[in-house]
Amino acid sequence: MKLLNIQGLIISNPINIRYILGIPVEGKILIADRENIFVTDARYIEEVNRFLTINDEFVIYDAKDLSDTDNQNFFQNCENVGFEENYVTFAEYENIIRKYRIKNMEETEGIIEKMRMVKDEDEIRKIEKACEITDKCFDYITSFIKIGMTERQIALEIQKYFLENGAEGEAFETIVASGENSSKPHAVPSDKIIREGDPITIDFGAKYKGYCADMTRTIFAGYINDQMKETYELVLRNQVRATKEIKEGTSCKMIARSVENEFYLYNHSLIHALGHGVGLSVHELPILSHNSQLSLKENMVVTNEPGIYIPGKYGIRIEDTIRVGRNEPEVLTKSTKDIVII
Amino acid sequence: MKLLNIQGLIISNPINIRYILGIPVEGKILIADRENIFVTDARYIEEVNRFLTINDEFVIYDAKDLSDTDNQNFFQNCENVGFEENYVTFAEYENIIRKYRIKNMEETEGIIEKMRMVKDEDEIRKIEKACEITDKCFDYITSFIKIGMTERQIALEIQKYFLENGAEGEAFETIVASGENSSKPHAVPSDKIIREGDPITIDFGAKYKGYCADMTRTIFAGYINDQMKETYELVLRNQVRATKEIKEGTSCKMIARSVENEFYLYNHSLIHALGHGVGLSVHELPILSHNSQLSLKENMVVTNEPGIYIPGKYGIRIEDTIRVGRNEPEVLTKSTKDIVII
Repeated sequence: MKLLNIQGLIISNPINIRYILGIPVEGKILIADRENIFVTDARYIEEVNRFLTINDEFVIYDAKDLSDTDNQNFFQNCENVGFEENYVTFAEYENIIRKYRIKNMEETEGIIEKMRMVKDEDEIRKIEKACEITDKCFDYITSFIKIGMTERQIALEIQKYFLENGAEGEAFETIVASGENSSKPHAVPSDKIIREGDPITIDFGAKYKGYCADMTRTIFAGYINDQMKETYELVLRNQVRATKEIKEGTSCKMIARSVENEFYLYNHSLIHALGHGVGLSVHELPILSHNSQLSLKENMVVTNEPGIYIPGKYGIRIEDTIRVGRNEPEVLTKSTKDIVII
Repeated sequence: MKLLNIQGLIISNPINIRYILGIPVEGKILIADRENIFVTDARYIEEVNRFLTINDEFVIYDAKDLSDTDNQNFFQNCENVGFEENYVTFAEYENIIRKYRIKNMEETEGIIEKMRMVKDEDEIRKIEKACEITDKCFDYITSFIKIGMTERQIALEIQKYFLENGAEGEAFETIVASGENSSKPHAVPSDKIIREGDPITIDFGAKYKGYCADMTRTIFAGYINDQMKETYELVLRNQVRATKEIKEGTSCKMIARSVENEFYLYNHSLIHALGHGVGLSVHELPILSHNSQLSLKENMVVTNEPGIYIPGKYGIRIEDTIRVGRNEPEVLTKSTKDIVII
């Protein structure tokens, strides 16, 4: 807060609140010189009071017990109050200024999101567990998939597997995109039937105690044709090469550029970021793209997911969730990247 | 747009985009005097181009094909450009002004959300289907639940039922709250075991083709004690009475007030809204609460969900999804509201 020159801070993004308080509840954390408070409502007050102790350094309030004057006084000694400009809506921004009579609102540029980038041991253990369930699910699903099934059927089976095998559920909506659908990076599972010769891109991940895994494999139904094989090898070569650079000090821009350049040499392009942070959110900082100014640090957890998409024909993407090591990467999703034919 | 005195409009909330375009994609709809455009990116461009035709009156652009000048010229004849102040973050708001060189940004006060309140036949059919699956799930789950199971086990079974019976999944995270947990309106399913004498509040709903159902029943394990029975009857009596008023012309404020007043007479209070609209979002306009200025109109779809919560002891909530009729309500969730003992 000193670096940002702010004396007060309002945190309302539920994921940031979960990160700070350790429980999934809604409300607002208000930090000022006098005290830190967590303002919630009747839906959550009992849970919060049960979970947080005096050691948590937050005083809990039910919003309805705070008068207008209480609210107006809270930040009275704060010249600048930080807020989450990437979460707070414009309407809420105006509401906050009115409600708390704030003199200057200051953008915090992801102050909490940046804290969330480097994971502690407990967080890494949870992500590892999410990745382990995801790997086991891949094993299971490759034996489950048969020619003639629909994409939707496969996506449902993945969801069920997660629920029955210790995950809270999916970390995000599973993508199962086969044949020409695989050329759409964010295809939604459809009633399209898996046919012989189809590539099948499966982008999925379990959620475990709030933490996410994110993995993609492209597998093949019956056989793989030469063109797809060539593309697969180009993607895989780059995925493996980039993985080696997932270590302390690597520039997020440079690692993305290196794959972009290599694809370009083969007349392809990387139409999305090379990767992103993974934690309580499936997409978080840092972003591995040519727009990023960040460098990797030990115990960040990021994805590495190059993909090539030939519109109307097919697409290949290979993605792992990886812990950034001091000297080398630790790949947390361990499913085979050899060509799998089902 | 004339009413709001705006000449341009930017829509970026994905649910509003889905409502207007009919497909679940991300991007921005820009409306100005010259043309309506939908700006998306490489992830969605193929899907959008396949789905939308010239009759949709939207020209599709990949964001990367629009130059800075294109963007700056788009709204050049617009004195005021509307935006979704309840969706757009503060950071995005500042970005939009810079990118499009907009003279005046105008809050649109939920212009699309208000359009979404009254459902057309196709939307009602989808909500009916979501409610039908939810009812069948209630039948199934009351035969599934046994003393000794955990809340989490029951919530997972509901999720699986939806996936296996024609739904896209849950419309929202299922609540299964038993015993004293039921006194928390938004309890998360825990590893708590169902014991004899527990009330079990189940708040759940299927999602079908994007549309939501929302239903709550409180059932009882083994037996119901006299105090809970009295509370149950008070909640039910109010739920049934309020349901009769779910028709064209009823004030959202008055219907909520009438239940609040009745609870008050019995030394209880209604600590959340009485209900809310249901559609592509599980929570949408109108809100049935004492803060609302809206009146019900035919073919709105709303919930009616009074609840009484005794902190640390138990809670009872009963909720239906209901179509507002011209003269009378049509209750879309049809599960029994008699006391169910499992």
